[in-house]
Amino acid sequence: MFTDFSTQIHFSRYSAVAISEPPMHAEIRYCNVCGQPVEFRIPPGDHLPRHVCTRCGHVQYRNPKVIVGVIPEWGDGRVLMCRRNIEPRLGLWTFPAGFMEQGETSAAGAAREAREESRAEVEVGPLLMVINVPYVSQVYMIHRGRLLSPHFGPTPESSEVVLMAESEIPWDKIAFPTIWHGLRAFFEDRRRGVWTTHVLDLTQRPRPPRQAEVPGDDPVGDA
Amino acid sequence: MFTDFSTQIHFSRYSAVAISEPPMHAEIRYCNVCGQPVEFRIPPGDHLPRHVCTRCGHVQYRNPKVIVGVIPEWGDGRVLMCRRNIEPRLGLWTFPAGFMEQGETSAAGAAREAREESRAEVEVGPLLMVINVPYVSQVYMIHRGRLLSPHFGPTPESSEVVLMAESEIPWDKIAFPTIWHGLRAFFEDRRRGVWTTHVLDLTQRPRPPRQAEVPGDDPVGDA
Repeated sequence: MFTDFSTQIHFSRYSAVAISEPPMHAEIRYCNVCGQPVEFRIPPGDHLPRHVCTRCGHVQYRNPKVIVGVIPEWGDGRVLMCRRNIEPRLGLWTFPAGFMEQGETSAAGAAREAREESRAEVEVGPLLMVINVPYVSQVYMIHRGRLLSPHFGPTPESSEVVLMAESEIPWDKIAFPTIWHGLRAFFEDRRRGVWTTHVLDLTQRPRPPRQAEVPGDDPVGDA
Repeated sequence: MFTDFSTQIHFSRYSAVAISEPPMHAEIRYCNVCGQPVEFRIPPGDHLPRHVCTRCGHVQYRNPKVIVGVIPEWGDGRVLMCRRNIEPRLGLWTFPAGFMEQGETSAAGAAREAREESRAEVEVGPLLMVINVPYVSQVYMIHRGRLLSPHFGPTPESSEVVLMAESEIPWDKIAFPTIWHGLRAFFEDRRRGVWTTHVLDLTQRPRPPRQAEVPGDDPVGDA
């Protein structure tokens, strides 16, 4: 029935850099309302174990996080890329992206991330891609955007901020599979002249690289 | 530049039922790692105040939540609707939807919600709609789906589970604006014969209803 569904489910073609384990969640051991120990058990009326306070009964939920990003395009067609100055993936490349904050839309969050990571002012446009990443409990919402001025530069989060043509994108030094897929979708749609909202489930962790695939000239990558 | 952007940003046309305040977050007062009191302050290198432990320094973040849902279609074109048996919006109507769990894709979560709320087995299809709801820090991911068998029924969460034709949808008794918009998009796309992924920012709370708009025959709505 869903003839267009197959385009939404496929595995990552991103495999050229090693992916480390996601940062571990800190373990929930105490109630954040009353400070007493919690138990990990199924609360009444629920179906999954949760962290439940042994004293006040407060249930602390853990839920997937949303990451918002934007691919900012300059008037000449180049896009703004940032070299990560922080872990994870320090030294690898990304467009501006980060955790969505309370009270934001995805577009507002993406504009904020652009400011924080590159000091760029970006008009955030339509949603280009939604990516489910269940193995790290994340959902990516990637917009395309328009860089409003040529004023941008390094920040504590980005050691370099650079405009890149498609031919200059360092495909083997992209920080995350989601970023790789977002860039691919962006350039493919732009070439076709047809923009759409792509949907992708990344259900498998990228495989570790074979030695020959490890970038040799990247002094800070963790590959 | 973004000529198709205006279709992604518009305000809710849903205004026929009252919306109560969202449930308050429990206040974070203690560290869930070590049990000691937290302070609400900007951690080093951050830009927003967070709950930071006064003893171990653990930072507890609060982030928007993802709600996953599905509009399950039966072979005759009717869709599966559930009458809520729980607060909020007890007594009003929805398709299956609920908080995404850790480790899920949006499709897997939507299928789980259908099972929990209606005992229905649903083949979850493409993403129909993404809705940002910043005033409650939520992102909705609404899929369309195919009801796989006519076996469904009430659950602790749903007092009634019913197949409805478009003409039978109780538009003035829909539980949430997001559900209303998802159904509208579904029936509009189906009528046109063109499916797309809709994107919507609901940036304004629905206005309170005028008295004449309050459903008169709904004994349990909070309007």
